[in-house]
Amino acid sequence: MPMTPTPKRVLPWLALPMQEWVRGYDRATLSSDLVAALIVTVMLIPQSLAYAALAGLPPQVGLYASIAPLLLYAVFGSSRVLAVGPVAVVSLMTATAIGDLAQAGSPAYGALAITLAFLSGGMLLLMGVLRLGFLANFLSHPVISGFITASALLIAAGQLKVILGLRVEGHNFFALVLGLLRHAADTHVLTAVLGLGTVAFLFWARRGVKPLLLRAGLGPRLADGLSRAAPVAGIAVTAALTWAGQWQAQGVRIVGTVPQGLPPFTLPAWDLALWQQLAVPALLISVVGFVESVSVGQTLAAKRRQRIVPDRELVALGAGNLGAALTGGFPVTGGFARSVVNFDAGAQTPAAGVFTAGGIMLAALLLTPALYYVPQATLSATIVVAVLSLVDLRILRSTWDYSRADFTAVVATLGVTLAVGVEAGLVAGVVLSLVLYLYKTSRPHIAEVGLVPGTEHFRNVLRHQVRVSPQLASLRVDESLYFANARVLEDRVNDLVATRPQLRHVVLQCSAINDIDASALESLEAIDHRLREAGLCLHLSEVKGPVMDRLQATGFLQHLSGRVFLSHFQAVTELTPEIAAVAA
Amino acid sequence: MPMTPTPKRVLPWLALPMQEWVRGYDRATLSSDLVAALIVTVMLIPQSLAYAALAGLPPQVGLYASIAPLLLYAVFGSSRVLAVGPVAVVSLMTATAIGDLAQAGSPAYGALAITLAFLSGGMLLLMGVLRLGFLANFLSHPVISGFITASALLIAAGQLKVILGLRVEGHNFFALVLGLLRHAADTHVLTAVLGLGTVAFLFWARRGVKPLLLRAGLGPRLADGLSRAAPVAGIAVTAALTWAGQWQAQGVRIVGTVPQGLPPFTLPAWDLALWQQLAVPALLISVVGFVESVSVGQTLAAKRRQRIVPDRELVALGAGNLGAALTGGFPVTGGFARSVVNFDAGAQTPAAGVFTAGGIMLAALLLTPALYYVPQATLSATIVVAVLSLVDLRILRSTWDYSRADFTAVVATLGVTLAVGVEAGLVAGVVLSLVLYLYKTSRPHIAEVGLVPGTEHFRNVLRHQVRVSPQLASLRVDESLYFANARVLEDRVNDLVATRPQLRHVVLQCSAINDIDASALESLEAIDHRLREAGLCLHLSEVKGPVMDRLQATGFLQHLSGRVFLSHFQAVTELTPEIAAVAA
Repeated sequence: MPMTPTPKRVLPWLALPMQEWVRGYDRATLSSDLVAALIVTVMLIPQSLAYAALAGLPPQVGLYASIAPLLLYAVFGSSRVLAVGPVAVVSLMTATAIGDLAQAGSPAYGALAITLAFLSGGMLLLMGVLRLGFLANFLSHPVISGFITASALLIAAGQLKVILGLRVEGHNFFALVLGLLRHAADTHVLTAVLGLGTVAFLFWARRGVKPLLLRAGLGPRLADGLSRAAPVAGIAVTAALTWAGQWQAQGVRIVGTVPQGLPPFTLPAWDLALWQQLAVPALLISVVGFVESVSVGQTLAAKRRQRIVPDRELVALGAGNLGAALTGGFPVTGGFARSVVNFDAGAQTPAAGVFTAGGIMLAALLLTPALYYVPQATLSATIVVAVLSLVDLRILRSTWDYSRADFTAVVATLGVTLAVGVEAGLVAGVVLSLVLYLYKTSRPHIAEVGLVPGTEHFRNVLRHQVRVSPQLASLRVDESLYFANARVLEDRVNDLVATRPQLRHVVLQCSAINDIDASALESLEAIDHRLREAGLCLHLSEVKGPVMDRLQATGFLQHLSGRVFLSHFQAVTELTPEIAAVAA
Repeated sequence: MPMTPTPKRVLPWLALPMQEWVRGYDRATLSSDLVAALIVTVMLIPQSLAYAALAGLPPQVGLYASIAPLLLYAVFGSSRVLAVGPVAVVSLMTATAIGDLAQAGSPAYGALAITLAFLSGGMLLLMGVLRLGFLANFLSHPVISGFITASALLIAAGQLKVILGLRVEGHNFFALVLGLLRHAADTHVLTAVLGLGTVAFLFWARRGVKPLLLRAGLGPRLADGLSRAAPVAGIAVTAALTWAGQWQAQGVRIVGTVPQGLPPFTLPAWDLALWQQLAVPALLISVVGFVESVSVGQTLAAKRRQRIVPDRELVALGAGNLGAALTGGFPVTGGFARSVVNFDAGAQTPAAGVFTAGGIMLAALLLTPALYYVPQATLSATIVVAVLSLVDLRILRSTWDYSRADFTAVVATLGVTLAVGVEAGLVAGVVLSLVLYLYKTSRPHIAEVGLVPGTEHFRNVLRHQVRVSPQLASLRVDESLYFANARVLEDRVNDLVATRPQLRHVVLQCSAINDIDASALESLEAIDHRLREAGLCLHLSEVKGPVMDRLQATGFLQHLSGRVFLSHFQAVTELTPEIAAVAA
């Protein structure tokens, strides 16, 4: 794999990243990009149709949404290999956001999808210009993980309905599963055979096709490329069978007529009341899409020692969604599967994306009549196989082992998403994880420490055999001090003073205190004041530079009843020499 | 001042604190408590009337609210000297909470005040039983300070209206002040002379009375006690003048008939819709009352090396408010002024509170006819003088100097409270301070550090002349790693890798990392994975014990591309010996 030149410096923020790769573009890069584009195009055609169906939109909309966004991302994006277009979770969120406002498949529904893409694009662009990319960081990994898993299960359950040819209504996962079980007897057998057969074939194809092709004497590169065409093969075969048997007459639902032609020029609805209604879903779609896209982009960029610029990605994804809105599409983002395929197929520059867009455009112009007999159950089968790979229930086990707070966040996100819906689940997860974080920092670990004999180290008196003096108490606070936890320290010191009549000195070891806010400073002043009133002294040790700078700007250190020591050992040896003497 | 015996251990949580002081109660303590009770009673009578008026309630309600709560606090409270009853800010919040629901002074209004006290009492009790006292910590000092100052200004502006005999309506501070200016010409001159005269007298009395009495040959203790009776003297003199001149006939509004007798037995309204309406105000009143009470209690307890138990205080304040609700009162809390007076007057045990309650009860039985001619403007004058001492605008300057985040929280709380109201101001302050805290922790200080020549210390490369190697980058993160900041570290490392082609090792100095949550662990895994893909190694140094324990429970350390070093110096000397050699 040829190494691309590494940029020597961070680009001035608004310069187009294109400049970086257009200059050195040569024949070898062109050939790599063209091969990658061909493979991605073949993979994208069925995927685009399927995700449009998942979003409740006509199939051609999936193709439209895979053209302009790819071109615009190539101009503005900072990743070399990210492929932008419809993805499963965002398609589900789109269906949820506009499902109650219009009948799926109707022109009004399409107009809503366009408006949603427009709003999402505008928000992403604005966040990029205002450099608000850090907001996405408030979606924790456990929340994202629980959300993606729950969304995948929701999508799979919804598609199973199509695969079995059932008409089940369900507002949440459990209602959907219950409905499927209750109406199982009404399964349309021919549809189910086609759909489940395709599912089985695709699961097998994941592992089975490549070795077969290799054994047949094909090169590994070609075998890999061909194995990715399994969904296309599945669609072609089931469409051919349906045509041969004219199964649509027997109730197998097919894609039907797909208009031929280039993407149309469209505009969003200029309706402020509607915008207000769609604002929250658009924001959630933007944030989820951004997080998914950036994590894919970062993973792939790092493999070649390249980098992506998150705020730049916001601009590029914003442009992509605005592009989708202007060309009859729906909300898009950088997809995991297609980007990895693009990378593995050897794409070197965003030109591969431009070529892919060209390929999809040709498909929209020429190929749509061939889609007439494709059974909807086959498209659903490709979705089910794709999304089930997103289900990751191991996160429950790993967070349980690692951190109960994270486990709680996963369970809440997963549970609320399945039981109520994608938007409620996401909001519940974010709010809960913030509340748990604040709760944790509001109850900091405060250890009373003593001298480990023969050393200058101090350790928790509850865990180690250490030397302490009844005249001196050493407290180590393992958290920055701020308003939510400052009083915990006050309470702890008050306890010490009330319960140890011999106490004369309290020393705070500040090595883990990264910040002291105004509330905590007042608490320290209150502690110092109370200690002084009771005839005791408050000392500090190992205060960090930046914290010391700020304390020195106040009167606190001048009025402190005790002193500030460089090291905790120094504090203890000077204040209670007998302890140090015994230790030495 | 005799020292009270210090409790030797933390009490079992639900044992009554009474047991602690009842056992050793003797004649000397009784005499101290009786003297303190007498002084506090004299001070409380005008204060109770005034705060009842501020809350929009008849004067006797202020007396009622000063009896049962004092008795109940004596049984359940953990502070020896806290005096519970009506206070300025809580009275204002009461008026705000129920002002829109009924006409001030009407029986329906009184029933609402009782219901509010009942709800607040129930909430406090519940928070105490569930040990949720830490929730109050989320009210930061700047927010409390801004809130108290704004409330005091609001109260003063509202009382000025009474002092000037004007009828001005205003929903916020600015409207109120504007109304006062606009209607200034309608000032009722006689009322204004009485009111402003009392204000002037009370301001003078604060400093002027005690030296006068001392010069007149009185003992310092007696002089101090008498100087606290200034409000009573002001009320007596203005009432006598009003009676002599029969000024009520000339438009001076007087207190009028105050029913004589013991507090009535009352019950709250059992109306769930009303409870829902009052729930948020009751919660805010509970939290503000609790914070005020605990901070007073802690300050006074520490002076005698005693301690108070915050969760126990919740129970005691809850009982006090329930008591107020059952005896025709309104929301109460531990007051600053009366508690300090009680302490200074030598109260030793909560028995002083019991005696004070007895004194107020006698006043309610016998003294109320004497209140007939008290001008309302005089009561308002005592409030204005009391609340203006709560105004502290220096907090603006001190937070501006110390921390812009804290300054922003003060300004927002102050501004929203003045412009919109007490509830909105408090909520805005809490939410904003949490958002600012999260924002700060989401952008941690990450320093690239280098070796200070001739030492084993590492310092920021941007601030100090240090030695670094092009093969090794040392990063020190000054914050615990959690979901909101983990990606910042990822970005920083990605930047390093992309911009330094010679780089081979990245070492994270973890001395300030108190916790690593599951998201941050995944980020570290992603960083490690990307570094490995690019041919680099990730190392850690100075990882804390508890953090190391948790990391060891995962597979992270086994798969780490680099090593974990005890000290950062060790890491650098082993990985890039040439740097250490030059340094030595």
